[in-house]
Amino acid sequence: MQIIKTLSELSELCRSFHQAQQSICLVPTMGYYHAGHEDLMQYGRTLADKLVVSLFVNPTQFGPAEDLENYPKDHERDSRIAESHGCDVLFLPDAADMYTADHATWVEVPKMTKILCGLSRPIHFRGVCTVVLKLFNLTQADYAVFGEKDWQQQAILKKMVEDLNVPVTIKTRATVREADGLALSSRNVYLTAEERKQAPAIYAGLCAARTLVKKGERNAKKIKDLVLQKWAVDIPLGRLDYLNIVDPYNLENVEYLEQDALMACAVRLGKARLIDNILLPACGTQA
Amino acid sequence: MQIIKTLSELSELCRSFHQAQQSICLVPTMGYYHAGHEDLMQYGRTLADKLVVSLFVNPTQFGPAEDLENYPKDHERDSRIAESHGCDVLFLPDAADMYTADHATWVEVPKMTKILCGLSRPIHFRGVCTVVLKLFNLTQADYAVFGEKDWQQQAILKKMVEDLNVPVTIKTRATVREADGLALSSRNVYLTAEERKQAPAIYAGLCAARTLVKKGERNAKKIKDLVLQKWAVDIPLGRLDYLNIVDPYNLENVEYLEQDALMACAVRLGKARLIDNILLPACGTQA
Repeated sequence: MQIIKTLSELSELCRSFHQAQQSICLVPTMGYYHAGHEDLMQYGRTLADKLVVSLFVNPTQFGPAEDLENYPKDHERDSRIAESHGCDVLFLPDAADMYTADHATWVEVPKMTKILCGLSRPIHFRGVCTVVLKLFNLTQADYAVFGEKDWQQQAILKKMVEDLNVPVTIKTRATVREADGLALSSRNVYLTAEERKQAPAIYAGLCAARTLVKKGERNAKKIKDLVLQKWAVDIPLGRLDYLNIVDPYNLENVEYLEQDALMACAVRLGKARLIDNILLPACGTQA
Repeated sequence: MQIIKTLSELSELCRSFHQAQQSICLVPTMGYYHAGHEDLMQYGRTLADKLVVSLFVNPTQFGPAEDLENYPKDHERDSRIAESHGCDVLFLPDAADMYTADHATWVEVPKMTKILCGLSRPIHFRGVCTVVLKLFNLTQADYAVFGEKDWQQQAILKKMVEDLNVPVTIKTRATVREADGLALSSRNVYLTAEERKQAPAIYAGLCAARTLVKKGERNAKKIKDLVLQKWAVDIPLGRLDYLNIVDPYNLENVEYLEQDALMACAVRLGKARLIDNILLPACGTQA
């Protein structure tokens, strides 16, 4: 595995792969790997001749009051994990190289980035779109893999790729969870023991919503109310950021489920802001 | 010369060029060719193995009150001209293919797009950046050529390419002018005979500013006042949109010329909005 730190080395190396007719899969990460990242890498390894993993805690997707400075970090362990999954190139750029002092260009999908997580993180997806497009351009990746825990992120990035005709195919992977249902996240380390005990109830609430939909409920408000009632009991330490039922592709709010929808949420628990989501299969059966 | 209308055909053709180790130069245009476009094509022809010319009147860079519907058009003549300059591929997409009904992604360089022409055309450069990035992605062009008449445009696009690590090299060409100094523009056809007589005074004013700078004047306000005084006499039908002296690269306003600067203007003459610019060489000689 090669560890590359400069942008020019990365683009030259990837260009040489393509000149040798080798395809490239990119797995963009912020590091501090858990089994969810490992799944993305394992899957990415099967998609192309060369697996490029980027590890960059992208400052432009963090708001001023967010956890950029404290984001957990362990490059040595991360390097070993990436190599163990057949990563060919680990890209570890400096923020000052990724963003020159006079960086001024932004990519945005406004109607998809100002909702859900974008409401409490107004510049987040602008930063995500911009850095991911930079990584696509630097690597000229044929494939890129993202996790479905950040559902909004992958929906926005697919839209960006389609709208801008970026020659990359985005693939996604299901959320990897702890045995008790908690979605894996590098930010789970922020949880105290007490908060960690309550955290699985986030996903349990989403599963209860799915059960309700399977039984025939189609009214989004009733489905959300059930989840909120459960959370009020099971996550007393939690503070709701949002809970929405939306179209899985364009993320527009759904009032009445006429087709498959996505229930997505963010819940603050102590220092952690945890996101999760679940597909609500409303096709076929009518209420 | 191949005439291509669909996005997928363009990207497949350009991919085949690259697979055959042939480099690509793109000349993006809105058609209704004049000698300025011909110069871009002739120069583009020398830069790469394949010359791709796009002809697309991009709706997203026109404001609601602008001349999208009336923009002059002559595809037959344009095709002959492109072919005569060695164009390999003329790309003539439909607007509905370039922008799907749910297009939602925008690229912007806010601090460079809200000034100069951006003040009276607030969405213009967002549309330009977005469509040009789409064309770069579709063609994977190695080179692209733009005219210096739209100085702000090429400065913004160079910044976009740098900030987003787009693997293209942007080249520019000097403005081509009529014998009397008027910058060539497809929009010059909007001028009445009387307006056409006054129009060359735009560039004459800019040249007077350069002469003043060469003589040692460094105060931007004094330089601009000279031009405005001349225009008041020589272009009585004109209405000033803007006249600014700026840094040629980041387009920030310059009050005192310590290094080479750019004087840029837009003047409305009847139905036409004419832009022009001139470099003010302030290096070396001190006032």
